[in-house]
Amino acid sequence: LSTDRLQVAVLGASGYAGLELLRIVLRHPRLELAAATSEQRAGQPVGEAFPSLRGLTSVRFEALDAAALAGRADVAFSCLHHGTAAPAVTTLRKAGVPVVDLSADFRLRDLAAFEQWYGPHKAPELFGQAVFGIPELHRAELPGAGLVAAAGCYPTSALLPMAPFLRGGLVEPGPVIVDAKSGVSGAGRSLDEQYLYAELAENVKAYKVANHRHVAEMEQEASLVAGRPVGVTFVPQLLPVIRGIATSVYLRPAAKLTTDDARAVLEEAYRGAPFVRVLPAGETPSLQAVRGSNFCDVTAVVDARNGTLVALAALDNLVKGAAGQMVQCLNLMREWPETLGLLEAPLVP
Amino acid sequence: LSTDRLQVAVLGASGYAGLELLRIVLRHPRLELAAATSEQRAGQPVGEAFPSLRGLTSVRFEALDAAALAGRADVAFSCLHHGTAAPAVTTLRKAGVPVVDLSADFRLRDLAAFEQWYGPHKAPELFGQAVFGIPELHRAELPGAGLVAAAGCYPTSALLPMAPFLRGGLVEPGPVIVDAKSGVSGAGRSLDEQYLYAELAENVKAYKVANHRHVAEMEQEASLVAGRPVGVTFVPQLLPVIRGIATSVYLRPAAKLTTDDARAVLEEAYRGAPFVRVLPAGETPSLQAVRGSNFCDVTAVVDARNGTLVALAALDNLVKGAAGQMVQCLNLMREWPETLGLLEAPLVP
Amino acid sequence: LSTDRLQVAVLGASGYAGLELLRIVLRHPRLELAAATSEQRAGQPVGEAFPSLRGLTSVRFEALDAAALAGRADVAFSCLHHGTAAPAVTTLRKAGVPVVDLSADFRLRDLAAFEQWYGPHKAPELFGQAVFGIPELHRAELPGAGLVAAAGCYPTSALLPMAPFLRGGLVEPGPVIVDAKSGVSGAGRSLDEQYLYAELAENVKAYKVANHRHVAEMEQEASLVAGRPVGVTFVPQLLPVIRGIATSVYLRPAAKLTTDDARAVLEEAYRGAPFVRVLPAGETPSLQAVRGSNFCDVTAVVDARNGTLVALAALDNLVKGAAGQMVQCLNLMREWPETLGLLEAPLVP
Amino acid sequence: LSTDRLQVAVLGASGYAGLELLRIVLRHPRLELAAATSEQRAGQPVGEAFPSLRGLTSVRFEALDAAALAGRADVAFSCLHHGTAAPAVTTLRKAGVPVVDLSADFRLRDLAAFEQWYGPHKAPELFGQAVFGIPELHRAELPGAGLVAAAGCYPTSALLPMAPFLRGGLVEPGPVIVDAKSGVSGAGRSLDEQYLYAELAENVKAYKVANHRHVAEMEQEASLVAGRPVGVTFVPQLLPVIRGIATSVYLRPAAKLTTDDARAVLEEAYRGAPFVRVLPAGETPSLQAVRGSNFCDVTAVVDARNGTLVALAALDNLVKGAAGQMVQCLNLMREWPETLGLLEAPLVP
Repeated sequence: LSTDRLQVAVLGASGYAGLELLRIVLRHPRLELAAATSEQRAGQPVGEAFPSLRGLTSVRFEALDAAALAGRADVAFSCLHHGTAAPAVTTLRKAGVPVVDLSADFRLRDLAAFEQWYGPHKAPELFGQAVFGIPELHRAELPGAGLVAAAGCYPTSALLPMAPFLRGGLVEPGPVIVDAKSGVSGAGRSLDEQYLYAELAENVKAYKVANHRHVAEMEQEASLVAGRPVGVTFVPQLLPVIRGIATSVYLRPAAKLTTDDARAVLEEAYRGAPFVRVLPAGETPSLQAVRGSNFCDVTAVVDARNGTLVALAALDNLVKGAAGQMVQCLNLMREWPETLGLLEAPLVP
Repeated sequence: LSTDRLQVAVLGASGYAGLELLRIVLRHPRLELAAATSEQRAGQPVGEAFPSLRGLTSVRFEALDAAALAGRADVAFSCLHHGTAAPAVTTLRKAGVPVVDLSADFRLRDLAAFEQWYGPHKAPELFGQAVFGIPELHRAELPGAGLVAAAGCYPTSALLPMAPFLRGGLVEPGPVIVDAKSGVSGAGRSLDEQYLYAELAENVKAYKVANHRHVAEMEQEASLVAGRPVGVTFVPQLLPVIRGIATSVYLRPAAKLTTDDARAVLEEAYRGAPFVRVLPAGETPSLQAVRGSNFCDVTAVVDARNGTLVALAALDNLVKGAAGQMVQCLNLMREWPETLGLLEAPLVP
Repeated sequence: LSTDRLQVAVLGASGYAGLELLRIVLRHPRLELAAATSEQRAGQPVGEAFPSLRGLTSVRFEALDAAALAGRADVAFSCLHHGTAAPAVTTLRKAGVPVVDLSADFRLRDLAAFEQWYGPHKAPELFGQAVFGIPELHRAELPGAGLVAAAGCYPTSALLPMAPFLRGGLVEPGPVIVDAKSGVSGAGRSLDEQYLYAELAENVKAYKVANHRHVAEMEQEASLVAGRPVGVTFVPQLLPVIRGIATSVYLRPAAKLTTDDARAVLEEAYRGAPFVRVLPAGETPSLQAVRGSNFCDVTAVVDARNGTLVALAALDNLVKGAAGQMVQCLNLMREWPETLGLLEAPLVP
Repeated sequence: LSTDRLQVAVLGASGYAGLELLRIVLRHPRLELAAATSEQRAGQPVGEAFPSLRGLTSVRFEALDAAALAGRADVAFSCLHHGTAAPAVTTLRKAGVPVVDLSADFRLRDLAAFEQWYGPHKAPELFGQAVFGIPELHRAELPGAGLVAAAGCYPTSALLPMAPFLRGGLVEPGPVIVDAKSGVSGAGRSLDEQYLYAELAENVKAYKVANHRHVAEMEQEASLVAGRPVGVTFVPQLLPVIRGIATSVYLRPAAKLTTDDARAVLEEAYRGAPFVRVLPAGETPSLQAVRGSNFCDVTAVVDARNGTLVALAALDNLVKGAAGQMVQCLNLMREWPETLGLLEAPLVP
């Protein structure tokens, strides 16, 4: 293993996922931060714009110029919004730079589905070319990949507990119910009244009930793993929490299944997956136990009286739901150890 | 309307539900606090034990002596735990004192179900005699009732959004899924590590998955209103919130049903119910909008693509889920205006 | 006591202080909400704009027209910003409507000081005419007053614990240190990044250190009560709390003073003041004990080793620091019982 | 630099500071966790007792046996309580094991002062032998030291902003006022009602006003650096925050001093101190910017009108206030780079 470091560009680096990438890149033994873009803060040293990073890097934010970045970066992470990401990613890919993109621009395989939720695509020639970036579901496709579309935070939190049961046909066809609760950093630094402390603290509220666009990703990947179309009723809720998503998935077992069986299914599926921890019987995932880390904790409980399988997950939306998963994808693209730079213990309490 | 005030005894008055009762009794125009019991704080003035109440009452906590209270109280609210409540309630009832009891001792109608969850019953002669205390479901039984078993906070939050759909046979048989998130005051003032600020803040965690005893109440009342046995898969979760329960109920419509239809069902069901607010289309219940109040806000959304009906509710677990509902029951027992002492606006922000 | 209700107009009613006024006016036995102004929400029913108030009032927000309001209102509360308040208040006063104003426009007596902090005054003819609205300091001036300038939240929290010691010359000349911590509702519903949940939760930060304009009010009133110029070093800090201000005031006793002496000074000063609660020895004010109420809890401790007097206070910035104090002022202006509509118990927990 | 790792024992490893030590030791390139003691959890794997650490270590908690540990550990960190720490530390020191101790047992130099606050000392022969563990104040004494008494969290937060001004005689004799606000993890995992989420959220409260035992450390070190006795009036307050201390220190300049001068004093004092960040003019320390990190951010503002110098600091009480500072001390004891294992970026947001 050489100790040379790859030069990394982070696009859209001043949002919450971008900041988290900076945090991880700064400690990753094979990466060196070469550039960080932000339209709003262009010219400002990163450590001035974000006091937490004072003294940790001398990089300055710069305006986005994908062509110029292509000459300076060995690899790029993009945290740009959908629509903005597509052309920048295209430029980088044309110049041969491997890209891990966090936007929705390259996650879907059905252009009609994309356009229904997001409008016209800005780089249709690359559409459908990316590896869907949940390594636990697409590990074999990652080594050497040029474009990875890192999954959304909600889809990651729903698919990891759900996929093993769909895969084996262990559950009946019929809609899957996903009741998910997210910390507010998932909404980024949006200046919207509902995200103010005085509005959100001591509050919880569902939004976009059965109408959130992440459902398209969930259904695509759930159907892929199940080998049949799977519908998802998705109810997202906003929590008075900075980081973290806790997700309950409700399924109907196709045959008799005990809680022990269900846990065994998860353990079998995630043997060898260093970031998915299947909890021992009697424990449930908590946001605390994954805070600041790339872990996704999962478990399953069968309500035998009613024939319901409850699969639960918790992850940090900015790490396993965003920046951490992006770095995990890169590690696998480069055939580095999957956990490189990512094994930091969660921040507890 | 005479302005005489009933003399009120609050049993178990130093827990969170008891404190909330004191708060409401102190402002209720027809009630006067005559006694407040607390084993732990017996002898202490209420306003010393709880600095928030300093200057608002001269009552002292006293040890529980139900027989003596029977001579001083026109009516009693009991916030004692199950098991402790039953004998005290029996003494008061034998002396002719109307009682609204918040414990589980008198909520169920099936003694076997009670004993499965709570162990041997301490006052079997009164078992099954109480009116189940959700006024919106049992209004006709309340006037003149002598014993009311106020419903649990979770069951109230699940039954109010669910009942109108079960009642009309609008949903298919099959288990109802109840995904509920509760503020920590629902656990009372228990000294358990998981309730410490440093453990609970920024955290969310499911517990007693499909194994919480409130499921018995939910199934009893859901079955009663549906006219057939209804199973409930109930997943409670603890939130970093002081007060409030947000509940998602998942049902399967028996026939085509739009979101507008579903909301109309709720509106029809709760016309004339002053504390259940059916929200306009596009709005969802929030803990904030009911904080400190006796309101339960509800709505329903149909996921037509997947044939799922999502019914949502939010309430304050200490008010509509406990003390407020108890006073609402008493108002109806006495045939006073249902809203007497209970129309305080929520504390927002 | 007649039971006629005064018709009340609330100007700037959609901000946090305005909303709190609506909450109090709706329960006040002598007041009836006649009008609520909001430029942004004009035309919307109050109960639609603010779901917490759904079902509690049929009033609609309207655009501000002070002249028209003068014909419909017996009394007005203004929560308009400084600069906007002055002309509206002037119109109302010319029409003979008594006004309690929460802006800074009429709090100061020194026009130069006002203009230093706030710029040119918009209604200089009324400047200096208002009673400073902390009833505990200016009770005698309130009956019959036409214009009251309700004090700011920080000054109220600093002056109540400080004034009794300045009044009797019990402390040495020299600057008073005021270290105050405020919940975020004090900043209103401002869309500023620092007030986002993800930025403010788990955070605390000082701002405008020794440079916050509330210092002018504090020094004015401190000097008035001391009978000599008193300087105040004021350090405000933002807390991850919705409501509440906790303030530490540091003074130097002029002569030997024990903690018991200091508490006796406070008790003597606030005998007969129903909303200032002097805590027993060994207890300290907490935000919890005053949440949602008009109480200000105070105490004092002497550090005899070092010759420092520490006076502490806690209040709810939206009640005793704003809306509640405004209603308290009105009660005294009308010579009603001081506590009318204001004795609601704090929301605990 | 050899890459051999020292075998580390963590005593009292299941408390919050101990857990944080595990988190840091697990990532430190020169340390290997050899033992972790906990009476309550002896026998349990660390990753079972604390789900956040699942998969990160195979160490099991064990009961404390200092003599046995001496044979297995190259170095020890003790997070035992005062009284319990002294004998264990003595055993380890006699066996030649270097120890960094977080208790109060070895911080003070005046035995009478120790006994006044903590009672009889359990290992008087070692009393007064330790280096006081704030590296920025005692850097020269650390290389090769055998016993370091890591400072308390409050004293660290007060002394770092205060010391540079005392050192040069820049401030007048007279008591220093320290108004400090701490997150609740500072109290450990104590099962006390006041630390429950429902009691502490949305609350702030002063405690042990001018009577907290950390004042002894503050006065000892302040006097040492000033070269004269310095009294400290210390008012600690509990915040609804998991981690972090924000401290305001109030001093009186001995001569004319501007804010720029004051900041220059801090910059000069902390040039070369990698963990103390002097903020640029106009910025103030925040808990967010140091969360999870070993940084202490400081600044100073002069209130020229009143002749007050306000020095402010923020740090994470579990890192720079405990575990991080302990590792920083060890790095210096071993003459490793001071920042080894400690340069992780703060967790923002």
